[in-house]
Amino acid sequence: MRRSRDAFIVGIGSTAFSTNSNRSELQLTLEATRAALVDANLVADAIDGLVTYQSDSTEPVRLAYALGLDRVRFFAQTSYGGGGACATFQQAALAVQSGAADVVVVYRGLNGRSKTRYGQPTETPTAYFPYSASQGLVIPAHRFALAVHRYMHEHGIDNEDFAPVSVTARSYAATNPLAFFYERPITIEDHQSSDWVVEPVLRVLDCCLETDGAVACIVTGGEIARRSAKRPARITASAIGMVGEPEVVSDFYRPTIGRLPESAIVAESLWKQSGLRPTDIDAAILYDHFSPYVILQLEAFSFCKPGEGARFVADGQISLKGSLPVNPNGGQLGEGYVHGLNGVCEAIRQIRGDAANQVSDVEHVLVTGGPGLPTSGVILSAA
Amino acid sequence: MRRSRDAFIVGIGSTAFSTNSNRSELQLTLEATRAALVDANLVADAIDGLVTYQSDSTEPVRLAYALGLDRVRFFAQTSYGGGGACATFQQAALAVQSGAADVVVVYRGLNGRSKTRYGQPTETPTAYFPYSASQGLVIPAHRFALAVHRYMHEHGIDNEDFAPVSVTARSYAATNPLAFFYERPITIEDHQSSDWVVEPVLRVLDCCLETDGAVACIVTGGEIARRSAKRPARITASAIGMVGEPEVVSDFYRPTIGRLPESAIVAESLWKQSGLRPTDIDAAILYDHFSPYVILQLEAFSFCKPGEGARFVADGQISLKGSLPVNPNGGQLGEGYVHGLNGVCEAIRQIRGDAANQVSDVEHVLVTGGPGLPTSGVILSAA
Repeated sequence: MRRSRDAFIVGIGSTAFSTNSNRSELQLTLEATRAALVDANLVADAIDGLVTYQSDSTEPVRLAYALGLDRVRFFAQTSYGGGGACATFQQAALAVQSGAADVVVVYRGLNGRSKTRYGQPTETPTAYFPYSASQGLVIPAHRFALAVHRYMHEHGIDNEDFAPVSVTARSYAATNPLAFFYERPITIEDHQSSDWVVEPVLRVLDCCLETDGAVACIVTGGEIARRSAKRPARITASAIGMVGEPEVVSDFYRPTIGRLPESAIVAESLWKQSGLRPTDIDAAILYDHFSPYVILQLEAFSFCKPGEGARFVADGQISLKGSLPVNPNGGQLGEGYVHGLNGVCEAIRQIRGDAANQVSDVEHVLVTGGPGLPTSGVILSAA
Repeated sequence: MRRSRDAFIVGIGSTAFSTNSNRSELQLTLEATRAALVDANLVADAIDGLVTYQSDSTEPVRLAYALGLDRVRFFAQTSYGGGGACATFQQAALAVQSGAADVVVVYRGLNGRSKTRYGQPTETPTAYFPYSASQGLVIPAHRFALAVHRYMHEHGIDNEDFAPVSVTARSYAATNPLAFFYERPITIEDHQSSDWVVEPVLRVLDCCLETDGAVACIVTGGEIARRSAKRPARITASAIGMVGEPEVVSDFYRPTIGRLPESAIVAESLWKQSGLRPTDIDAAILYDHFSPYVILQLEAFSFCKPGEGARFVADGQISLKGSLPVNPNGGQLGEGYVHGLNGVCEAIRQIRGDAANQVSDVEHVLVTGGPGLPTSGVILSAA
């Protein structure tokens, strides 16, 4: 338990992002894991750790069986859906750093369009969201919009201010062949003429994709990382943040609901662990289930001051030529929705220097989990 | 992420173990957590980490809200029920050792008799156990008995050989005022005249209790541990073990089903991490959902040779005067069933020297998670 060392991501793999994979989530996950193994130049037998989301249908033991593993020494499943997206890498890093495991696969596979559509009401919303569902807030957009509406009120902005986030994401996706929306950019006008989902807060083009797909990443220590075929990325810092809430995603009992206190906890932990500051971050993967949350996270992570996020994106700061390129893969608005894990692959590509929309001289990338609920984040760095 | 230091258990708390708590699982968990805080001489605000089982109904965010926490930096929920019992302490130790959190509560609360009876068939057994449930194996006793039956065949023993495990557990419980079966010992004859649950393998008195109750333990680093009121216990080693299985708890596709390969993985990790050997262990808390698994674990952890476990218990080696007192609280056969976590409290009491059935000069205690599925273990030591 006392061994302390760095942890690295040495392999990434993903499936296509589609509306209908015609395969099971286990099959998708296997494809992604095999791709990650090949990318890392490792054999399956090397895997002795498995980490995924609690909400993933492929339990670690199923993937172990499918891969033929007979000696797994670490497994974990992180809570709170996309909020825990980056907690998976904290788990993998802790396992590798402590010696609990040597090679950990972090994976997430979901038929998010053909099977479980997160944008639709769940069968029993009142079981999970007793207070808000009974008030008619039955899909995620409803629940998140209430907090965003308060933010809009406080800062005097409206839905049009979110358009640059979506337009930028789609412009990135348009030039990323991996993206679902490859070669399909949108304009501000497209955004403003798209249907309301929750008027006057969120339109269709403010909402992330629903896609089928899987992603896997391989985390290991320095010894294996040094031999890896591709440039390894160090997990420089990883953190979790939570505040007490009566209802996850719908905590309307806070002193103010238009802020992200969980993200602020994550930010403080990441800066403290890494010794880095926001200006040291070369690109960011900010969880974009809904476009305004890019703006709120820019503020929570101190890339701009409170209330200045909308101006930051309107000024083009999140584009390739801006001060902080954000989601250059197209994000979950444009590339695909794998509960945040596809963003980690993009961070790795940026660090390797082989992204479709490559930011120049990338040393440090911030990746965040879903904001507005118990959340997480990592800083990944060139090693 | 690079800080490396020891982790200690400095506080334990539990409710009574009953057949009907008349309270919610959250209420039980709160009572246990408050007791653990008082035991540790800490205030609730000190808590910044929360770890429980994935199957616990009190999600970390609910306990955080109930305790009024507004700054949680670590949360985790371990998979595979009682198998992950000790993985909770691996999680807590990794969090504390890495600096991800300073004070972590590990908790488990369940109304295991008045609400969810694990001994009964689940509503949809075929969803969780598609291969075995369709063959009529609908309760845990059915599933575990098949593997035990093979073990009995291989070693030429029968159900009577399990009686000393149950009788010893009940004799310990009889003198432990915390135990559900306080002052209610049993004899070999009682065991042999108890009803069959799965003939000719398991009788009623081979099966663990179903109780309502909750347990909480507080894990922290050396700085706080040094100031703690009671003698702290070091988490000397913690480990997880898994092999690929087509169906958890019902892997009948292994080369041989009457063994515990997961426990062997855990054992190897624990001995390696700690530098200790079986003869260094002064007392063991072996997960006793079913009495024969005490015997199988004695072998998997090398306290005796394969096939000699029944003789080991028949010779009285697991009693207070034997070479390895096992479950001196009465275990889950006699004290209560909190999915393994009450056993950790007993380990702490043994290390502190204030157990009802105190083993003399306890330095190291082995605690195991549920065997026969992905499992876990810890070695706790006098600090």
